[in-house]
Amino acid sequence: GCGCRSRQDLLLLSPGTPPASSPFGSLWPLPQSLRVSPERFRLAPDQFQIVHGPGSSAGSSCSLLEDAFRRYYEYMFGYSKWQNRDGKKSLCETELSLLQVIITSKDSECDKFPSITSDEAYHLQVSKPTSVLKADKVWGVLRGLETFSQLLYEDDCGSYFVHESVISDFPRFAYRGILLDTSRHFLPLKIIQTNLDAMAFNKFNVLHWHIVDDPSFPYQSTTFPELNAQGAFTPKHVYTPTDVHNIIEYARLRGIRVIPEFDTPGHTQSWRKDILTPCYSGKHPSGSYGPINPILNATYDFMMKLFEEVGNVFPDDYIHLGGDEVDFSCWSSNPDVTEFMKKKGFGFWYSKLESYYVEKILEIVTSLNKKSIIWQEVFDDGAKLQPDTIVEVWKKFLYQLELARVTKQGHQAILAAPWYLDLISYGEDWKSYYGVEPLNFMGSKSQKELVLGGEACLWGEYVDGTNLTPRLWPRASAVGERLWSSKNVTDISDASKRLTQHRCRMLRRGIAAQPLFVGYCTTLEQ
Amino acid sequence: GCGCRSRQDLLLLSPGTPPASSPFGSLWPLPQSLRVSPERFRLAPDQFQIVHGPGSSAGSSCSLLEDAFRRYYEYMFGYSKWQNRDGKKSLCETELSLLQVIITSKDSECDKFPSITSDEAYHLQVSKPTSVLKADKVWGVLRGLETFSQLLYEDDCGSYFVHESVISDFPRFAYRGILLDTSRHFLPLKIIQTNLDAMAFNKFNVLHWHIVDDPSFPYQSTTFPELNAQGAFTPKHVYTPTDVHNIIEYARLRGIRVIPEFDTPGHTQSWRKDILTPCYSGKHPSGSYGPINPILNATYDFMMKLFEEVGNVFPDDYIHLGGDEVDFSCWSSNPDVTEFMKKKGFGFWYSKLESYYVEKILEIVTSLNKKSIIWQEVFDDGAKLQPDTIVEVWKKFLYQLELARVTKQGHQAILAAPWYLDLISYGEDWKSYYGVEPLNFMGSKSQKELVLGGEACLWGEYVDGTNLTPRLWPRASAVGERLWSSKNVTDISDASKRLTQHRCRMLRRGIAAQPLFVGYCTTLEQ
Repeated sequence: GCGCRSRQDLLLLSPGTPPASSPFGSLWPLPQSLRVSPERFRLAPDQFQIVHGPGSSAGSSCSLLEDAFRRYYEYMFGYSKWQNRDGKKSLCETELSLLQVIITSKDSECDKFPSITSDEAYHLQVSKPTSVLKADKVWGVLRGLETFSQLLYEDDCGSYFVHESVISDFPRFAYRGILLDTSRHFLPLKIIQTNLDAMAFNKFNVLHWHIVDDPSFPYQSTTFPELNAQGAFTPKHVYTPTDVHNIIEYARLRGIRVIPEFDTPGHTQSWRKDILTPCYSGKHPSGSYGPINPILNATYDFMMKLFEEVGNVFPDDYIHLGGDEVDFSCWSSNPDVTEFMKKKGFGFWYSKLESYYVEKILEIVTSLNKKSIIWQEVFDDGAKLQPDTIVEVWKKFLYQLELARVTKQGHQAILAAPWYLDLISYGEDWKSYYGVEPLNFMGSKSQKELVLGGEACLWGEYVDGTNLTPRLWPRASAVGERLWSSKNVTDISDASKRLTQHRCRMLRRGIAAQPLFVGYCTTLEQ
Repeated sequence: GCGCRSRQDLLLLSPGTPPASSPFGSLWPLPQSLRVSPERFRLAPDQFQIVHGPGSSAGSSCSLLEDAFRRYYEYMFGYSKWQNRDGKKSLCETELSLLQVIITSKDSECDKFPSITSDEAYHLQVSKPTSVLKADKVWGVLRGLETFSQLLYEDDCGSYFVHESVISDFPRFAYRGILLDTSRHFLPLKIIQTNLDAMAFNKFNVLHWHIVDDPSFPYQSTTFPELNAQGAFTPKHVYTPTDVHNIIEYARLRGIRVIPEFDTPGHTQSWRKDILTPCYSGKHPSGSYGPINPILNATYDFMMKLFEEVGNVFPDDYIHLGGDEVDFSCWSSNPDVTEFMKKKGFGFWYSKLESYYVEKILEIVTSLNKKSIIWQEVFDDGAKLQPDTIVEVWKKFLYQLELARVTKQGHQAILAAPWYLDLISYGEDWKSYYGVEPLNFMGSKSQKELVLGGEACLWGEYVDGTNLTPRLWPRASAVGERLWSSKNVTDISDASKRLTQHRCRMLRRGIAAQPLFVGYCTTLEQ
């Protein structure tokens, strides 16, 4: 297909392009700085390579990059008909044959785990015959490869092109998360991996793994195997140490952190009964159990051992400790708890008992050299936080005020409140997610700097492997652009066009992302 | 697994049973009459057969039944581990080895198409060593096989059982439909077939195929190939005559009618421009087009030929003619239409012009020996309907009043209004679908008899192959039971338990039905 007339009316045209097209093509999220020239270069799958460039501190021993090169080559060309050409080399004269990837700092961080301070910036120069992607660290390369792959498009004849461009890019927020809940429904590994892929396509960098909760305890602990034996839905609905390790490594290769949440003292009905509070009905135990029992030394011994294991299994610097929605009625029914409250001088302030508990857990986690994230109630109820504890704001009512209060106290914050994607409604709800400005609250410049980012939460009441992926994507993509791109990227009409194409691309890459509205993708892959 | 202790605490236990269990097991929709004994019979896949029984008017030449026997054998045993036993016959002594299927009337209707008057009643006696399924027609056999397969359950050791039972069953309503919209998004054949499977699992019997609309015209007409060439999203987004034939036959084998909708005069933006009304801006055509042009003879010539083809391609007695949401603004802008209105003495009553048009289309369809279904506006706007025209009530506001008005005029009606499943919301919305009583309107007994049934509509704005199946199931199952089972089957708590198991069964049979709420299926198939 060398001689095919191209559609000159569109500056950037992706495969699957619906009639309306953005001047920024199918880029999602939009880079911070972008110069695109009308000139374009032809590529051919059999004459194109992604390679380590001169002077790079990384080489073929960096399997993270090797893997990424292979993966992005496949994303770019893999779904095309060319694969059927039986190895015949095309006769087409191509103009761009090489993408050189250069890591410019001494330590590429190839074998490290991503962290809240990871440098994801990159610089991409698309020129002929060689394009160059430069970054200080592998994390920037991963983001840059995604961007490069999004610049590629096929014309109507199946020829590949990219436009001459210069892109300098970096994330607006360091924390860009997706919360998945594997307690209310078990999610097979394959589904989690698919969504890690989708996260990478949208430049998300944190999987907040809400791994256990009231309904089930699928995490297989080596220290306390009984937790899982008693708490999993069935012996098949479990994440073994190998499963967890695989998820963490799969995520790492995509520049994604995995932060586990072990939510206490509430949301623990699937835990071992002996560390839960026995509820009373009048003078006798009712047979039911409430939150973690905060008055037992055994509780803290158990938690120390559990978090020691969790801290070892999950390499991230942070553990999410939960702390939301603690129901005080069981505590207040229990005479031993009442006695303990009296002794401690808490009166009838159960929030003080909650704070007492959480402060001890925070100390445990600190002693293990880990940092903590907690849901906003822990802050609201007055617990003394560690200086580096991050407060996650989730309650939708006046969340801007909560951000102001948290940061006023000098705490770092992440925002989830406007992005509860489980709360579905009819219509193009992604636009409301897109319209959120996380820093739109009353506060000083230094307060705003304490907002590390945010996350899209897909709680598990109504989702499992059958519907999770289409329900999350492309709705979460709206959050992805909000957290990556510049504050002034707010044109909803342009975003609609780019996101429609981005969704078709996700579909081609195997993500069953649902449609945004009436229309089609040129590839019939759904 | 002969010697395994069974869970005696549950009368009927299906594979995938969650803790809570209904006395009616996993039956969905609930049969009209059902006697289950505590006694149960063991079955084994390699010692069980579904066969034509003595005196049946159908035999091995009836491929509809042969196909159904094979299919239901697979549903009952196919997902089990036994397939890995490499043909070794089990040594287990089984008690039930035969299901005899007996068609009792002379004409089994094996090679016919189902219709609004099809007899779907059946009688099922589960006894040992032979069970008997009797029905007048193949349609009853199909429903009875589904019920028999729902009686089967596996115990914890993988042994199969059914309880001794006697079931007499028939549908409460003759019309039980699902509307799929292939214009707003194209649906691949595979998706339509999967949903026909799911319809059969829920005893639905009509696929209302809203095949064309404003956004695209995927129907490939042999008479007017240009309709499709101009109106399809792309040349790949089409239903060829073979595709349509395959869908119709796939549906017939499951006792499902396929009623095509060619919605006019509105919703026709994807049609040939020369039969649409040119809209005017002041004194000049604006370049845009409105509804079908009702003042041209060419329009009716075209419609005659189109419906002649459609009537031949689709064997059902009915064609859905649409007639909803006609926008009068374009008609009123057009001077030729205005002139025509004047000549006809319509004044400024555009609803009279609409009625004029629809009445002519109704006459065309009648002349082709087909009957019509129309959306309620056609009735509301006062068109003179044919005596056998069915009115579909879709507007949610005061729909009971509309049912009363339509049936008061002696017209048959089908109800869609409370069952617009595209209008999603957070939570267990199936309960509101389930709670609808279609005959709960002011009217005489003979008026109520005019309500033929109803349908669940999944309009296509926000669904395509990526999310249609989980969004439709098991939410549409609620409508399925409402339309099949007795009026007094309204216990939502019992329905919850049965539907949870029914959903797990759909999953095992390859339908990606979404979860109803927190929980799991024992088979990890999602």
